[in-house]
Amino acid sequence: MLDITGTYTDQYELTMGQAYFLAGRRYQQAVFDFFCRKMPFNGGYAVFAGLPDLLTALAEFRFDRADLDFLQAQGFHPDYVAYLKNFRFTGTIYAPPEGDLVFPTRPIVRVEGPLIETQIIETVLLNILNFQTLIATKASRMRLVAKDGLLIDFGLRRAQGLGGYHSARAAVIGGFDATSNARAARDYGLQPSGTMAHSYIQSHENELAAFRSFAEARPDECVLLVDTYDTLRSGLPNAIIVAREMERKGGRLKGIRLDSGDLAYLAKQSRAMLDEAGLNYVKIAASNQLDEYVIRSLMAQEAPIDVFGVGTSLVTGRPDAALDGVYKLAQADGRPVIKLSENVSKITLPQKKQVWRVLDRDGFFLGADAVGLEGEENIALIHHPFVPHQSMAIDPYETEPLLHLVMQEGEIVYDPPALPRTAQYCRERLGRLPTEYKRFENPHIYKVGISSRLKELRDGLIAQHKGATG
Amino acid sequence: MLDITGTYTDQYELTMGQAYFLAGRRYQQAVFDFFCRKMPFNGGYAVFAGLPDLLTALAEFRFDRADLDFLQAQGFHPDYVAYLKNFRFTGTIYAPPEGDLVFPTRPIVRVEGPLIETQIIETVLLNILNFQTLIATKASRMRLVAKDGLLIDFGLRRAQGLGGYHSARAAVIGGFDATSNARAARDYGLQPSGTMAHSYIQSHENELAAFRSFAEARPDECVLLVDTYDTLRSGLPNAIIVAREMERKGGRLKGIRLDSGDLAYLAKQSRAMLDEAGLNYVKIAASNQLDEYVIRSLMAQEAPIDVFGVGTSLVTGRPDAALDGVYKLAQADGRPVIKLSENVSKITLPQKKQVWRVLDRDGFFLGADAVGLEGEENIALIHHPFVPHQSMAIDPYETEPLLHLVMQEGEIVYDPPALPRTAQYCRERLGRLPTEYKRFENPHIYKVGISSRLKELRDGLIAQHKGATG
Repeated sequence: MLDITGTYTDQYELTMGQAYFLAGRRYQQAVFDFFCRKMPFNGGYAVFAGLPDLLTALAEFRFDRADLDFLQAQGFHPDYVAYLKNFRFTGTIYAPPEGDLVFPTRPIVRVEGPLIETQIIETVLLNILNFQTLIATKASRMRLVAKDGLLIDFGLRRAQGLGGYHSARAAVIGGFDATSNARAARDYGLQPSGTMAHSYIQSHENELAAFRSFAEARPDECVLLVDTYDTLRSGLPNAIIVAREMERKGGRLKGIRLDSGDLAYLAKQSRAMLDEAGLNYVKIAASNQLDEYVIRSLMAQEAPIDVFGVGTSLVTGRPDAALDGVYKLAQADGRPVIKLSENVSKITLPQKKQVWRVLDRDGFFLGADAVGLEGEENIALIHHPFVPHQSMAIDPYETEPLLHLVMQEGEIVYDPPALPRTAQYCRERLGRLPTEYKRFENPHIYKVGISSRLKELRDGLIAQHKGATG
Repeated sequence: MLDITGTYTDQYELTMGQAYFLAGRRYQQAVFDFFCRKMPFNGGYAVFAGLPDLLTALAEFRFDRADLDFLQAQGFHPDYVAYLKNFRFTGTIYAPPEGDLVFPTRPIVRVEGPLIETQIIETVLLNILNFQTLIATKASRMRLVAKDGLLIDFGLRRAQGLGGYHSARAAVIGGFDATSNARAARDYGLQPSGTMAHSYIQSHENELAAFRSFAEARPDECVLLVDTYDTLRSGLPNAIIVAREMERKGGRLKGIRLDSGDLAYLAKQSRAMLDEAGLNYVKIAASNQLDEYVIRSLMAQEAPIDVFGVGTSLVTGRPDAALDGVYKLAQADGRPVIKLSENVSKITLPQKKQVWRVLDRDGFFLGADAVGLEGEENIALIHHPFVPHQSMAIDPYETEPLLHLVMQEGEIVYDPPALPRTAQYCRERLGRLPTEYKRFENPHIYKVGISSRLKELRDGLIAQHKGATG
């Protein structure tokens, strides 16, 4: 139904591509940076995600017959349409491993290659990375507060159309254990999860009959939804009856699910009723408008919930709903370039750059990434990118480079780890980020600084443009 | 890359399907209702959208080889997997025309058919209708305040992955004129729109050279982005130079685009500079974090903006990011059924139902939809669905039925109008909704009432369940 073809882009990329093409600039080179200006959810970090999907999309990026016909019908130049017919992305890409933590202003992904190609793929890059990074970040926030609780993505029905496919994957990177989305589970090897809806109960003569028939059909994976009629007066007593019947057959009821009402109160009552019936092994799952704040509140109330089913707020990354990632030109035809703005924080960083993470002596992240020019080594001092006269010495510390080659001249040169390993990597990186950067309210601001050489280059370009227009 | 197959659903639909199948209930019939509990954006209405995409998905819904292998590997019963191999959706669907206005509680779509089939398609129905309805509604709010201004969807880069495809379509139903999303334009026949990014300017020696080359490449569709270096001191003066050069060649600069800074102030200054240069025909486009509130504010300030480019808030339906639409069982095996809840407003309406819109004498909507039993005629009185002793006489008024047959036993029996006609229909329906239901702040609440017969049936079922559990 929807494959990513050449027209999976903004029209202006194609328009600019034609202007470059007709001006004979087909072989000029460019460098673009993907970066964010602020972190989602007023948080202190973001979890980078979407890289393998992006690389696959770029390796397979082609204008098919329908694309070419569409462009021709709009009056695009025949020579340009002929060029697009043979379009391949031949660029080179540097990126962090999926699951790494990223911060504002620093380049997250660097794209190099022919100007037209690197321009045309802007939209697909932003579309994939912005969304998966948003969702992996949201998921990681829920993981932080859910402790060892199981987290299950229930969101496909409220997802933004086909967007639910990639959100299921990104959620696992951020720390989710399973998904209700069978198709994403199929394609990405995720753990599928799902039991019953209210309709199943309603479709039977009564709740007890429904529970019995379900226990028969799913003796090993039987989780009973207990709130169709009355959670404590009907759902729980019936679930206990069925659990005992299952015991008599040598089986075990796996769990019950609460989907409405006061989840903390109902979980405590349910736990007590189950324990009193000798069913302390029966797990309690809860769902209904959960997000990281509700989960945190439930944990703070010591609600005995073992499994959290999260829908809308996970798969849509509500309330932000989008990461503000942008893709800006840093070098064109060998020249470093910038974009100015009345808002200084929107002035871009010119030239081909590398990013280093500064490490504290105990292996924790110190709380600073350094942005320097590609090839620059042993950066001793970093400067605040926008505020004058603020700098920080980093030479006493170890650093590690963050941008690694993942695509070379259009070929993927990166073997994506299996998803559980990516999730594990994310967990490790989050473990090395001090707690104060992870809190929800006013997190500590992770510093991103620029090297003296980069600052000098940038300030020179600003002065040059101010001179030209002032 | 992503076609909708049988596993494009929640795992629990498949689990329940197996339980029904193994219990020999394969031929039992069911009726489900799709409805919302509240309107998005704290608004007074929603615009129904997504119907043709849903019907196509249902008509083509198949379990492919990969789906069947996936289910087999999970230990689903071989007989059930064999059944799914030949699965076709053979149900019957009633729905309003796309673009009609819908309100809380009333059935929006009614699905009838074999229990297993109607259960399995729950997720795909919710996934498609919830999202497109959300976006069409958001778009209509921007159309209400943008008056005759052109509205263009710029959102693909911030869309939720592949979700951007359908949001472009839904935006047009709600009143958008064009989209930057070339692929959606190609497939849905939308008007594509796009000119240049900052990178285009930056990739040239200077801004004037960039404007000149673009004017040469796109003489008929030349819109110049004027904020790369300094909007009023560089962008505008350069745009005016190029506009005059175009005039000398017998051409015309189409417009300029503002993408940062105070849009109201810059639009007024730009308009004055352009007019003074005799370029009153040059249009002004504006973008940068627009939503219905910002557009309303710009209009209130009489900012001379002709074209609004809207990205994130349109295509993600921010801040809600999801419609809360649900799909609830109303009849099973011939029996009317309900779901109870501690929250009375979550109690469902049983049985097969029709909905009528009450019309005022002048052709406006009176502000009430009546929900009655299928086949019920001449409803004289409607009752508040949840608050006792509140009723309203509707017999003096004309009514029109809202649910129409669109799919019969799996066959689409509905010829979707061309998208511009659907958008026109939406405009007409909104034109018949009195203003007080359309305002953003505390809109008047559109009434949805139930017939006396439906109320009696519902209250009887509640009493029956309370008796059983009480």
